[in-house]
Amino acid sequence: MALTGVLRPGHVQLRVLDLEAAVRHYGDVLGLWEVARDPQGRVYFKAWDEHDHHSIVLREADTAGMDFMGFRVDSVATLKKLAEDVKASGLATDMKWVEAGEMLRTGERFRFTVPTGHLIELFADKDKVGNGMPLENPEVYPDSLKGMSPTRFDHCLLYGDDVDGTVKLFMDVLGFRLAEQVVAGPDRLQIAAFLTCSNKPHDIAFIRHPEKNKFHHASFMLDNWGEVLKAADIITRKRVSLDIGPTRHGITRGETIYFFDPSGNRNEVFSGGYIHYPDRPTLTWTDDELGRAIFYHDRKLNENFLSVLT
Amino acid sequence: MALTGVLRPGHVQLRVLDLEAAVRHYGDVLGLWEVARDPQGRVYFKAWDEHDHHSIVLREADTAGMDFMGFRVDSVATLKKLAEDVKASGLATDMKWVEAGEMLRTGERFRFTVPTGHLIELFADKDKVGNGMPLENPEVYPDSLKGMSPTRFDHCLLYGDDVDGTVKLFMDVLGFRLAEQVVAGPDRLQIAAFLTCSNKPHDIAFIRHPEKNKFHHASFMLDNWGEVLKAADIITRKRVSLDIGPTRHGITRGETIYFFDPSGNRNEVFSGGYIHYPDRPTLTWTDDELGRAIFYHDRKLNENFLSVLT
Amino acid sequence: MALTGVLRPGHVQLRVLDLEAAVRHYGDVLGLWEVARDPQGRVYFKAWDEHDHHSIVLREADTAGMDFMGFRVDSVATLKKLAEDVKASGLATDMKWVEAGEMLRTGERFRFTVPTGHLIELFADKDKVGNGMPLENPEVYPDSLKGMSPTRFDHCLLYGDDVDGTVKLFMDVLGFRLAEQVVAGPDRLQIAAFLTCSNKPHDIAFIRHPEKNKFHHASFMLDNWGEVLKAADIITRKRVSLDIGPTRHGITRGETIYFFDPSGNRNEVFSGGYIHYPDRPTLTWTDDELGRAIFYHDRKLNENFLSVLT
Amino acid sequence: MALTGVLRPGHVQLRVLDLEAAVRHYGDVLGLWEVARDPQGRVYFKAWDEHDHHSIVLREADTAGMDFMGFRVDSVATLKKLAEDVKASGLATDMKWVEAGEMLRTGERFRFTVPTGHLIELFADKDKVGNGMPLENPEVYPDSLKGMSPTRFDHCLLYGDDVDGTVKLFMDVLGFRLAEQVVAGPDRLQIAAFLTCSNKPHDIAFIRHPEKNKFHHASFMLDNWGEVLKAADIITRKRVSLDIGPTRHGITRGETIYFFDPSGNRNEVFSGGYIHYPDRPTLTWTDDELGRAIFYHDRKLNENFLSVLT
Ligand SMILES: [Ca+2]
Ligand SMILES: [Ca+2]
Ligand SMILES: [Ca+2]
Ligand SMILES: [Ca+2]
Ligand SMILES: [Fe+3]
Ligand SMILES: [Fe+3]
Ligand SMILES: [Fe+3]
Ligand SMILES: [Fe+3]
Repeated sequence: MALTGVLRPGHVQLRVLDLEAAVRHYGDVLGLWEVARDPQGRVYFKAWDEHDHHSIVLREADTAGMDFMGFRVDSVATLKKLAEDVKASGLATDMKWVEAGEMLRTGERFRFTVPTGHLIELFADKDKVGNGMPLENPEVYPDSLKGMSPTRFDHCLLYGDDVDGTVKLFMDVLGFRLAEQVVAGPDRLQIAAFLTCSNKPHDIAFIRHPEKNKFHHASFMLDNWGEVLKAADIITRKRVSLDIGPTRHGITRGETIYFFDPSGNRNEVFSGGYIHYPDRPTLTWTDDELGRAIFYHDRKLNENFLSVLT
Repeated sequence: MALTGVLRPGHVQLRVLDLEAAVRHYGDVLGLWEVARDPQGRVYFKAWDEHDHHSIVLREADTAGMDFMGFRVDSVATLKKLAEDVKASGLATDMKWVEAGEMLRTGERFRFTVPTGHLIELFADKDKVGNGMPLENPEVYPDSLKGMSPTRFDHCLLYGDDVDGTVKLFMDVLGFRLAEQVVAGPDRLQIAAFLTCSNKPHDIAFIRHPEKNKFHHASFMLDNWGEVLKAADIITRKRVSLDIGPTRHGITRGETIYFFDPSGNRNEVFSGGYIHYPDRPTLTWTDDELGRAIFYHDRKLNENFLSVLT
Repeated sequence: MALTGVLRPGHVQLRVLDLEAAVRHYGDVLGLWEVARDPQGRVYFKAWDEHDHHSIVLREADTAGMDFMGFRVDSVATLKKLAEDVKASGLATDMKWVEAGEMLRTGERFRFTVPTGHLIELFADKDKVGNGMPLENPEVYPDSLKGMSPTRFDHCLLYGDDVDGTVKLFMDVLGFRLAEQVVAGPDRLQIAAFLTCSNKPHDIAFIRHPEKNKFHHASFMLDNWGEVLKAADIITRKRVSLDIGPTRHGITRGETIYFFDPSGNRNEVFSGGYIHYPDRPTLTWTDDELGRAIFYHDRKLNENFLSVLT
Repeated sequence: MALTGVLRPGHVQLRVLDLEAAVRHYGDVLGLWEVARDPQGRVYFKAWDEHDHHSIVLREADTAGMDFMGFRVDSVATLKKLAEDVKASGLATDMKWVEAGEMLRTGERFRFTVPTGHLIELFADKDKVGNGMPLENPEVYPDSLKGMSPTRFDHCLLYGDDVDGTVKLFMDVLGFRLAEQVVAGPDRLQIAAFLTCSNKPHDIAFIRHPEKNKFHHASFMLDNWGEVLKAADIITRKRVSLDIGPTRHGITRGETIYFFDPSGNRNEVFSGGYIHYPDRPTLTWTDDELGRAIFYHDRKLNENFLSVLT
């Protein structure tokens, strides 16, 4: 098989301070589809072109941030195998199985804490609910799209301390590739790592930071740069807090805009980026070029980039 | 590992009637980079964002068409394994190893004829020559792009008789997935199959046709719909023979234009299309919707689509 | 003053065979705003970024086609002056004043028949109703746009016999400029004329044709080529009859798509085109390049272009 | 006639500190065409789709800034008439005729100082040199475009003290319309005025500022938002000093990017914006919405906007 093992970011659970304000944001501004609420009060969303039941789960809490991020693997056998591999690696802590159904329409998940402090899950089953179009003779998009209407949940960028350990776990155990990295100083310490398990330039990324388990952004895929402009217009039309953009990343080449949900969790919508293959050479940026690496046009970080986290 | 086995279309060798006219077409109109000529007189090209040495090889001959299409696999071990699997499948004929170096900068290739009559190769080694930018602190594209300047060679569409056998070989032996298909009549005979080994909607496709080993088009990836317009303008500016477009395919959703090289080999440049995963349901089109499937806006085939082949 | 005299195409009245089918087409597919119905049963529409009360009027009738096209002039004084000039020119027939209010929210109109047989009107007053946004601190577009949502009614292309007379009237009497023309044969007979009273490449155009008073299309302005693709997708999504496109015109350089309303009246939505000034040289196309002039990419007319008229 | 009087911004003469650095900037980065150098050492450029001989003139000097901006009028008669009107208005000072040929290929110019201290010229004659394509059977753009390759010089934004006087002169004497304005405080003092003599949303604009005769930017027109991204990429590729963007203006709705030439003169390239007519209502922004008016997405001014002038 050509795509095997860990297939994709399957879901992220975010903590929000005011659930209904968050529902309006993810539902009306981003235009995700609300698909369910569970007995715990969590609200489930999907981007329209995902076939899985959901990719975003919102939980009301006293602090914003990410509870966990889950990756879909290709089969139950792979799930069992990777759970064993994670255990054997000695790189993860707090490993446990979360039972099927604890998350709606989702099979059992293997959850563990990676060295940067983030909770990561693997799962093999989630119900397919389609993309709003028939599987026979479909149109090219469904009716009634609203808001930014990204096609997919794409990746997260996370901040934490032991990036070495987390990168090792993702690469050596979970089979990710290092598409790009940022190195600092004469010793070329890896301060950022962009990891892919697919043809996308990244499926998850990490930035070295003194504190564990911090969340920088969850990102959603748009079709093109014109849609990034439309998203920017919506951000102002809906008086959403803009972080930065429209602009381009040097890393991944993606065309992007960052903004905040009402609880302060950063979102990104983006388009573009190259096709990655496992034999594509890793691109390396040095910290003196960090500004251009992150924001290709501005060539400097905005003040929020390193400091505003949830 | 997350991407394994067959990774991508690695090269296609095309027969052209007048080599220098073809070199001008692929070099100046498409804007591929000529990278080498070999002692046989073949001319090698690459698209700029490919890291491998070449993806297009032109050979002067008395008839136009495709000599063979080669797929890169992830390792020599996989190459050996897949060669055994192909042999064991009973689906291929005329199997042989082509020695390393027969194609410049390329390792040994395992070549076989698939049931539709096409020559397909697998290979594990081709020299990396980069994309014209450094691996450290690159720009987002190299200087001196010209013509359409697609980023990659993307896929071929081939016509032949025993589509069942070829699809079986690609799916069961080489690990491809059926992203989309067209079925005809009350028995829903599969008359077209779009196969992927990646997150792209297709890496190769086949259409059922009475004659073996026919070539419909080789396709190259553009960044966006604005680049498709630029390509269309170049087609007229350079008085290239246009087939159809700009338009959109229903199948894959890609934004596309078809045109012909001076020898009559059809080319495509396209952008867009969804992200495919192995668990994405296959989309099926029925033959009464074939027009919309192929040309989403026109909703009917042009006269060339089924008849002009090389 | 810098813009004086005839300012713009202000309205076109179209005959449709089934009023409610037409209302759905212009309202839901094009996404014009229905603003009024009058006691005669006519339905009035405006494009969202026009400030005038309406620009499209539909009248149910037994044959499709254009009743008349009206141009807004800068003042009542200009209206009176131009009416006298038209009378004095000897180029128009059937001249009359249509009383204020015969068309809703519109002042008196001076109507006349031009040598190609079309009814043309001039008027100086139509109520301003805005573009759905406040005049103080607006957004960049209003909420609730749907369908193709062009910003403006832009121009008509009309077919008729005495193009010489009509062009003379528009240029010498009404102050239009000849932006582009097509000439045929050794005598360079003018077979098409593209006339502008603004910075737009055309506000009205004529093609020489044996029959008087024929209608080719009414055109609406989109923001960009991405919107042309969106329009094309809507055409298929709503199963509207497509004529041709997306493509580009050589004449005006506009990016365009032609389609038909349910009565067979051709519509166009387009974007782009250059900025015209009165001292810009007229561009001339010869009939051997007519295909490229009209459809820059195809470089030949489709079979409908010269024959399907209403 | 439909376009009369003052037709368009015809040229701007900029002072630069290092002529050859400036020539590289305007020639290679912006991609203007160098058309001439005069005995004074001034360098003349045109944007490709202008038919006039030149629109940008660079003069080496010890300080950066704008020497003067010239507007093309429709005829010598209009030039004489407007010169009389300017004299009669009592609003201008330092009026004089500059002889034909002082600026290459340009007729006599009537120059005067407006109340904000800027030198403005009117002229009726400049040689037509075309846009690099034949007037018969042209293509849609010429070969060999490079850099940002805007189609036209579009407008300037100028800062000065007596905005009231300057606006009065442009509106009452020269026939410009007030497309948009910004007003401040309870007395709604006009602090910014966007003036048009065409269908463009602005041909010149002024911002109230304590100092006379300051220059904010000269702006050039691009085809679309994709070209704005291309311009942004070039800005980084060529290590040009970026001010802000890509973003959108609330005022005019234009899609824009600001950057600096090597002498610190601000340039803009932009696309989009609505079609203006003389009867379109003026849009007014209040100073509490100034941020959104200028930078629609950021909704605040960057620190440079009010302070970095030449
Ligand atoms: Ca920006
Ligand atoms: Ca030859
Ligand atoms: Ca009826
Ligand atoms: Ca087309
Ligand atoms: Fe991101
Ligand atoms: Fe294709
Ligand atoms: Fe038209
Ligand atoms: Fe500006």
